[in-house]
Amino acid sequence: MKKERDSAWIEKHLPSILAGFQSCTDCSMVNLQKGTNLPGQRAVVETLEEIISLLFPGCYGYMPLGQDEIILGRVVGVAEKLADMIEQAKAYCCRENQCTKCGDCRAFAEKATVGLLEAMPGIRTLLHEDILAAYEGDPAAHSVMEVVMSYPGLYAVAVHRVAHHLVALDVPIIQRVMSEHAHAKTGIDIHPGATIGAGFFIDHGTGVVIGETCVIGKNVKLYQGVTLGALSFAKDEHGNLIKGNKRHPDVEDDVIIYAGATILGGDTRIGHGSVIGGNVWLTHSVPPFSKVYNQQPDPIIRTRE
Amino acid sequence: MKKERDSAWIEKHLPSILAGFQSCTDCSMVNLQKGTNLPGQRAVVETLEEIISLLFPGCYGYMPLGQDEIILGRVVGVAEKLADMIEQAKAYCCRENQCTKCGDCRAFAEKATVGLLEAMPGIRTLLHEDILAAYEGDPAAHSVMEVVMSYPGLYAVAVHRVAHHLVALDVPIIQRVMSEHAHAKTGIDIHPGATIGAGFFIDHGTGVVIGETCVIGKNVKLYQGVTLGALSFAKDEHGNLIKGNKRHPDVEDDVIIYAGATILGGDTRIGHGSVIGGNVWLTHSVPPFSKVYNQQPDPIIRTRE
Amino acid sequence: MKKERDSAWIEKHLPSILAGFQSCTDCSMVNLQKGTNLPGQRAVVETLEEIISLLFPGCYGYMPLGQDEIILGRVVGVAEKLADMIEQAKAYCCRENQCTKCGDCRAFAEKATVGLLEAMPGIRTLLHEDILAAYEGDPAAHSVMEVVMSYPGLYAVAVHRVAHHLVALDVPIIQRVMSEHAHAKTGIDIHPGATIGAGFFIDHGTGVVIGETCVIGKNVKLYQGVTLGALSFAKDEHGNLIKGNKRHPDVEDDVIIYAGATILGGDTRIGHGSVIGGNVWLTHSVPPFSKVYNQQPDPIIRTRE
Repeated sequence: MKKERDSAWIEKHLPSILAGFQSCTDCSMVNLQKGTNLPGQRAVVETLEEIISLLFPGCYGYMPLGQDEIILGRVVGVAEKLADMIEQAKAYCCRENQCTKCGDCRAFAEKATVGLLEAMPGIRTLLHEDILAAYEGDPAAHSVMEVVMSYPGLYAVAVHRVAHHLVALDVPIIQRVMSEHAHAKTGIDIHPGATIGAGFFIDHGTGVVIGETCVIGKNVKLYQGVTLGALSFAKDEHGNLIKGNKRHPDVEDDVIIYAGATILGGDTRIGHGSVIGGNVWLTHSVPPFSKVYNQQPDPIIRTRE
Repeated sequence: MKKERDSAWIEKHLPSILAGFQSCTDCSMVNLQKGTNLPGQRAVVETLEEIISLLFPGCYGYMPLGQDEIILGRVVGVAEKLADMIEQAKAYCCRENQCTKCGDCRAFAEKATVGLLEAMPGIRTLLHEDILAAYEGDPAAHSVMEVVMSYPGLYAVAVHRVAHHLVALDVPIIQRVMSEHAHAKTGIDIHPGATIGAGFFIDHGTGVVIGETCVIGKNVKLYQGVTLGALSFAKDEHGNLIKGNKRHPDVEDDVIIYAGATILGGDTRIGHGSVIGGNVWLTHSVPPFSKVYNQQPDPIIRTRE
Repeated sequence: MKKERDSAWIEKHLPSILAGFQSCTDCSMVNLQKGTNLPGQRAVVETLEEIISLLFPGCYGYMPLGQDEIILGRVVGVAEKLADMIEQAKAYCCRENQCTKCGDCRAFAEKATVGLLEAMPGIRTLLHEDILAAYEGDPAAHSVMEVVMSYPGLYAVAVHRVAHHLVALDVPIIQRVMSEHAHAKTGIDIHPGATIGAGFFIDHGTGVVIGETCVIGKNVKLYQGVTLGALSFAKDEHGNLIKGNKRHPDVEDDVIIYAGATILGGDTRIGHGSVIGGNVWLTHSVPPFSKVYNQQPDPIIRTRE
């Protein structure tokens, strides 16, 4: 009964509503069979979760399983889905850029997929050092598995190490969807292009931004709200932004950057062993073993008496 | 075997546990058949996701489909679910406010639902300008579809434009659940009441707060951690907060506000073409084409030598 | 046809890929049947969501149900799943710490589970005061149910009150997975160890960090980006961090802390009735009824004329 009434009230408006939607058959935000034809965001995220589960078997899913069930049972499925996605993304970019040299997008996609899967043990070795850095660097970490199961910084770095390897393999778009999933889940925004050494630890992490052209050394530790960003954007003679040039800082080995610090510029380099204090604003290089603190403003305190 | 033991240990405690829960049959956080009777949060979020998928067909789901499958197949279902939710929310508010004039909550809900669906092409046109603003304003954006598929600022603004239209249609509660879903997913907290012009771009976005009574012009660009907030809250003669008065700033066309800036107060207006630097704290108006920078504190740098 | 080709290209690489994965059978990030044997993250999160749904029946799910369906139908299932998880986590920690005194992990787990469920009415009473604090403290809150259905601060505090009770029951790991889920969803990072009084309200919330050893009184209100953190980490004679000592501040009753304020150190105590202004950096105690403001830096404003 109710259903009939429901359908009636909306159905009389359907022609005008549908005509409105039809007005944008080829506008920029449509990804359909006859159009752009990229994988959907949710498909990419689900494949990412399977890739992460290969790195941390049994940790992010439902319950402990045998290793065979997790890895042997998933590798082929992950590979097939990932290759299809990379093929679609590559074909989209070829069409956009009117590229004629890419040749066979399918062959590219299969090669990139095998490249990522063969790199997984190396990524896992890096992550092992990241886990130890978190455990040893945080007084609130009571066990190694607590870090693995609950630290958002570890999750963000795990996704980054996968996404960054896809950049190295010249894959377009897919890894940005992956890094934004990690950003959504953790509040940590690491561009896949950034290069990050082993033993990297981000504590708390909400609000961290690490730009595309950052290069970060080994055993670096960041806290929440740290920005490694651009100071200004270069433009070409037509006034359009130049894409891809070096515009974010370098951070050498064994640096600690406390919460809320902002470090900007492609010529800025933080020397190894330095400590950058909370809320510091820094737009130039500092030598190794620098200690950089804000003259914190003395707050004004009024009390009753 | 195990199941039987499991049930036994808990079942002997069930009477006291259930008695505890029964103690709050009519307290403020219960939404049951015989009680408040609003739609659940997850139901609202799922309907929101379907609305967003109508705006970006094929982008957020699983894989490219035909337009017919996505739009024709979803509009009626979305309309029925949304109308039911709006009806429930309106009825809740009428009961709470002892309203006698609202008349037929069902008729209100159907009208609002049709109103939103008919507004969708206009919302999509605004979003098209938002996409171009992101692509043109970010050197790290390598293609238009990369913006659509991965930029959290675009998602937050898309949800906002839907939620804001529901405010214009006088719908209660539902759009706040929607805006908080976008906040959860992106770290960008835009109150549905805020008014935002075309070509709006939020980069990175984590920590952005845009208050209920903000009015933002065209082609405005914000970075992470920007607050457009209230300076103080007015109270009535009983000491209760006054709700709904103008308490957040206005931002005119073509303004850029860099990361961590805080702009407060309902009388504060940022003139068109202005640039507000990172971490600036501003509680008064500035004229058009102002450049507002912090005298950034010179950090103290100690090195080994 | 396609499937066969797909399988062929990847299957020839399978031996080397699988050999890579096998190289880490007993490394630190594996949780398998024959290994660490903790519950997976997703399993913990789903059980958490059921626990929260017992506190706010009908609010976070799909649609209003009868109270019987929600509570009676879920308590036993929640109890069984939670007890299994606690048993696994306790057994993991006993193995890690070579503990010999814990005795029966199952008995421990059942006792803790009953302890949590019997504490739920008390938790709900606290949350009721949190809801009222939000409704009365935010001019944008138009109804009590709007707070319940959409305020991220309330969700984070609800999860915290459950997680903190598990700390009181000496449960390991599980509650950290729970608190990180709330952090992921809200951007609010409250360590389960923190002690928080009734009537607690966090507005907006993204970027808030509340450390493990904080003690917060009644009717405290925080805004986005507030850090209650550690000033420095004590180390033992071997240079390892000392875990668990008091290193985060105390905040007494009726304190308001505005956005972006940083309060650090285990000896720092904010006296009752105090107001801490936006972006204040405070590393020492202040007496009751203090008003602490930054000498906000006067921004430099250049205009065209």
